[in-house]
Amino acid sequence: MDIGSVGGIVFAIACILGGQALEGGHAGSLMQATAAIIVLGGTMGAIMVSFPMSDVKRGLGLGKLAFGEKKSDIGDIIKQVVELAGIARREGVLALEQKLTEIKEPFLKRAVGFLVDGVDASIARDALETEIHHEFDGGSVAAKVWESAGGFAPTVGILGAVLGLIHVMENLSDPSKLGGGIATAFVATVYGVGSANLLFLPIANKLKRKLALEKDRKTLIAEGVLSIQAGLNPRVLEEKLASYSGHHAPKADDHK
Amino acid sequence: MDIGSVGGIVFAIACILGGQALEGGHAGSLMQATAAIIVLGGTMGAIMVSFPMSDVKRGLGLGKLAFGEKKSDIGDIIKQVVELAGIARREGVLALEQKLTEIKEPFLKRAVGFLVDGVDASIARDALETEIHHEFDGGSVAAKVWESAGGFAPTVGILGAVLGLIHVMENLSDPSKLGGGIATAFVATVYGVGSANLLFLPIANKLKRKLALEKDRKTLIAEGVLSIQAGLNPRVLEEKLASYSGHHAPKADDHK
Amino acid sequence: MDIGSVGGIVFAIACILGGQALEGGHAGSLMQATAAIIVLGGTMGAIMVSFPMSDVKRGLGLGKLAFGEKKSDIGDIIKQVVELAGIARREGVLALEQKLTEIKEPFLKRAVGFLVDGVDASIARDALETEIHHEFDGGSVAAKVWESAGGFAPTVGILGAVLGLIHVMENLSDPSKLGGGIATAFVATVYGVGSANLLFLPIANKLKRKLALEKDRKTLIAEGVLSIQAGLNPRVLEEKLASYSGHHAPKADDHK
Amino acid sequence: MDIGSVGGIVFAIACILGGQALEGGHAGSLMQATAAIIVLGGTMGAIMVSFPMSDVKRGLGLGKLAFGEKKSDIGDIIKQVVELAGIARREGVLALEQKLTEIKEPFLKRAVGFLVDGVDASIARDALETEIHHEFDGGSVAAKVWESAGGFAPTVGILGAVLGLIHVMENLSDPSKLGGGIATAFVATVYGVGSANLLFLPIANKLKRKLALEKDRKTLIAEGVLSIQAGLNPRVLEEKLASYSGHHAPKADDHK
Amino acid sequence: MDIGSVGGIVFAIACILGGQALEGGHAGSLMQATAAIIVLGGTMGAIMVSFPMSDVKRGLGLGKLAFGEKKSDIGDIIKQVVELAGIARREGVLALEQKLTEIKEPFLKRAVGFLVDGVDASIARDALETEIHHEFDGGSVAAKVWESAGGFAPTVGILGAVLGLIHVMENLSDPSKLGGGIATAFVATVYGVGSANLLFLPIANKLKRKLALEKDRKTLIAEGVLSIQAGLNPRVLEEKLASYSGHHAPKADDHK
Repeated sequence: MDIGSVGGIVFAIACILGGQALEGGHAGSLMQATAAIIVLGGTMGAIMVSFPMSDVKRGLGLGKLAFGEKKSDIGDIIKQVVELAGIARREGVLALEQKLTEIKEPFLKRAVGFLVDGVDASIARDALETEIHHEFDGGSVAAKVWESAGGFAPTVGILGAVLGLIHVMENLSDPSKLGGGIATAFVATVYGVGSANLLFLPIANKLKRKLALEKDRKTLIAEGVLSIQAGLNPRVLEEKLASYSGHHAPKADDHK
Repeated sequence: MDIGSVGGIVFAIACILGGQALEGGHAGSLMQATAAIIVLGGTMGAIMVSFPMSDVKRGLGLGKLAFGEKKSDIGDIIKQVVELAGIARREGVLALEQKLTEIKEPFLKRAVGFLVDGVDASIARDALETEIHHEFDGGSVAAKVWESAGGFAPTVGILGAVLGLIHVMENLSDPSKLGGGIATAFVATVYGVGSANLLFLPIANKLKRKLALEKDRKTLIAEGVLSIQAGLNPRVLEEKLASYSGHHAPKADDHK
Repeated sequence: MDIGSVGGIVFAIACILGGQALEGGHAGSLMQATAAIIVLGGTMGAIMVSFPMSDVKRGLGLGKLAFGEKKSDIGDIIKQVVELAGIARREGVLALEQKLTEIKEPFLKRAVGFLVDGVDASIARDALETEIHHEFDGGSVAAKVWESAGGFAPTVGILGAVLGLIHVMENLSDPSKLGGGIATAFVATVYGVGSANLLFLPIANKLKRKLALEKDRKTLIAEGVLSIQAGLNPRVLEEKLASYSGHHAPKADDHK
Repeated sequence: MDIGSVGGIVFAIACILGGQALEGGHAGSLMQATAAIIVLGGTMGAIMVSFPMSDVKRGLGLGKLAFGEKKSDIGDIIKQVVELAGIARREGVLALEQKLTEIKEPFLKRAVGFLVDGVDASIARDALETEIHHEFDGGSVAAKVWESAGGFAPTVGILGAVLGLIHVMENLSDPSKLGGGIATAFVATVYGVGSANLLFLPIANKLKRKLALEKDRKTLIAEGVLSIQAGLNPRVLEEKLASYSGHHAPKADDHK
Repeated sequence: MDIGSVGGIVFAIACILGGQALEGGHAGSLMQATAAIIVLGGTMGAIMVSFPMSDVKRGLGLGKLAFGEKKSDIGDIIKQVVELAGIARREGVLALEQKLTEIKEPFLKRAVGFLVDGVDASIARDALETEIHHEFDGGSVAAKVWESAGGFAPTVGILGAVLGLIHVMENLSDPSKLGGGIATAFVATVYGVGSANLLFLPIANKLKRKLALEKDRKTLIAEGVLSIQAGLNPRVLEEKLASYSGHHAPKADDHK
């Protein structure tokens, strides 16, 4: 579980409702099914018009990526690739075949599979880069679904508030209901602005960042395996991958 | 029919009006011909000044693309192109002529027509790419018409609301009409913000996405037919087209 | 006259004032010289600080381009260029000299003049492209003047409204004048938002679009004449120019 | 003095205050030292945090460029460069040395100095382009200081207004002071929105435009002198520089 | 200590609170723990969802860069590099080894280390550029954390204000508390707009500027040392580095 994502949402809501409670307000006045229907329903509708259904489904499905935690395995992968490079050097590329079953990471397995199958280097590169590219592009569209939701929600919330105010204004003759009516109308704004700024936009941000990190990781795997195919010296390969992953900088500090 | 587009609009409006009804408001107060005249007329006028009439017409005409459903036929097209590649390989490019009448998809037919006519590869590529490019560019301008409408509508709505408020303010002496007047003024805002966020901007989004998908599809057709001309092996061609269409990734998973 | 531009402005204003009239308001309350002085004067001043006087003059001068109608003569030009290509092919480039007086379109005349004068191809290309480039760049700065006006007008309008409200607030002791004062203050907002969204921004949009179309048109002329110089076959040249102008696509449909 | 800049500011303020006076308001209510302290002080503070002091100083210093008038001397410079090219052609590059003292424009002098000193062409080009580049980049950062001020001022103005309203709200018990208090609070908004839209943003715009024109002018000088070094024919050089400066287009019209 | 950053914040707050005090308000009404909890807590939560924890930590850590002062040592570095170039020229690159202990700047030391170790030029360039690139990219993400905080804070502040207003509206029956309640609600807006415009956005700006300057500085070091390896003449190297650092322009003025 991505503690930052879950904790961030809980923390933000706790601070906001807690702060309100300290001032004498109570969360109860925010529990309004109608405001939720207006804001979430209106936003969902706008999203359904904006994107093909396949994009919408992918966007919702990708939502869990924002909340799932995946430990960085870059260090392990570099070690594994360098080890494979050593074997390929000593015993030839075909010797990697028996190692294939030990590889867990599916993209690395596929890449090494190309090596073992003797697929031409340029075709292997093309296939691996196309896969990286497609995964990233598809993910970016999905992240855009969340970003768009973050754009529509506040305006739909304002729409809901104006509708509520219209209702209030039409019944001005009974001033005792004025305050409560305006309060109710404002709740739609709270739902719109709150869902956009505490959920939709932050989730879109984290998705984009995680997709970029995953792209970097897959690119590192592809570069590593293609370098084995090109016969690069394992020690040089390790240096190269470390610099790709940004692990180089601290190490280089030893020179001081 | 694009169920997402139609359903999204219906769903959004149902949720918003339903939510309002649950709070005691009634949709009737929103039925105001004058607000519609102000917002839609003002927006339409701004669009007519912003774009040449030919763009405006194209934009309106393209609107139905946002609501039309077109099943993805990428799988069929790949199969067809690979089959044509097999025939071309076994019996020569000229043998494709008798297949020409069986091809339904007009762009594929035109591309194969170039092959059969013996048009030079670079000229055929130029002609196909120019057509793809022009269709996409023209469509993008049309999508911009909707996007601009989504930009003008809320400000025209605010204009209408301010005009209504001016009218209210000039008649402050009769306080009993105050509430109703303000309510009426706000309806223009509802029309402006609502039409922009539930119609114009989402339609512009979907048009842009559909145009991009159509561009990818035509590019795939062009690449496929030009690869036949280049004599590419049908099996390799299938791989190539599958990777272009993003169908590669799942298939590649089999390696796991 | 560009009917879209003139009609759009008339239509927008008619709808907005008409809608207001139907609600009982009257256009008279909007006839306020002071609001016009504040908004238009303030916007004009901001523009004068923002741009050198030469740009401001050019921007104002270019305004009439947004309202002038110019029929597309692409078809005629292609016909003329292809005809010239035929003459050049049969009788040599010098034979074009006697045709020079018949050419009306000044840019085409200048381009053919280079041919007749035997100017080197690369120098002719350079000169023609530089002219296209300069005209487009200069026009873009001029369009930016209108766009900036569309950006400044609403904020100056709000400035005017706040000034009006300050005046109202200072005289709260006489409540009977409250409504009228607020109404007057709001008129500045109407002028600012209205002029920006019904005039300045749409005019800037149309200028940008017309400049882009004119650039495409001149590029087509330059390409055509330079192709004559390169000795391109007239029939191939016609195909090429048609594809440049986007006239190709429909024609290609014949293949269906 | 740049009449557009000075006149624009005076004109804008005169129109806005004049318009207000015609409606019965008086400029006196806007003379509030506290609003000026809040808006200008807060904006200045935000700028000091945003940029290193060296950038802030440069930005303030560059402000006078927006108000200084510099006649375009492009025509003179072209004449001078063409003349130098003629001398270099007839008498050799070294003959330019005695002309060096007659050259007033420092950048042209430095460029010709490279010629006379026999500096290698690629090194001379590098040095001149680096200087142009650095001057433009440094100026752009300075223009950004003004642009940022235009971004911060309105929000600081709103901050000031909200602070004023808080003060008013805390003293609601005395309604007679309500109007005056709100009026005072609004003045901060006027200062923030006014300074941004009549001063900071327009000045940033003009600085950017003037820096771009100056960059074009220096590039023309560099190209001219480097062409002398390359031995370009003076007449061709004149044509080339004229096309660079955009003076070409009208001249080409003679062909009509 | 970066006097601009610290002084700017102090100056801005002093001007704003001082201005308010002069108008009769007192800073005490702004001392509200609840508003701070809502705005800062909500913003922090949104940031935690938006970025992986590692980015958030890096962003907070980098915050001190905005407040730390680092004198420009470009002059010293150029002198040192030119001196090293002289030694390398006279006594060979290996003679630099004994100088290695005297070099304080760690990046310069590492670069010269590559020289002494005889690392291949292209590999050394790659390693140095990768390090510069990674440091800049990582820093940019960290600066984005502050920029995002500046984007979320005002909307969370408005959220807090609306929540406060809802509370006020629900208790309209007691008008004596109305003013105080609204005042309290507005404080959240002050915290949101103030923290964004006086802290978060300016800090993000300064971080971005300092990162760019540091990147330029490291690029200069890398270029200098690589030029030593390439055997560039020390005097030419000095010229080159001076032009890189922008120190060239004033010097060139001597020619006048």
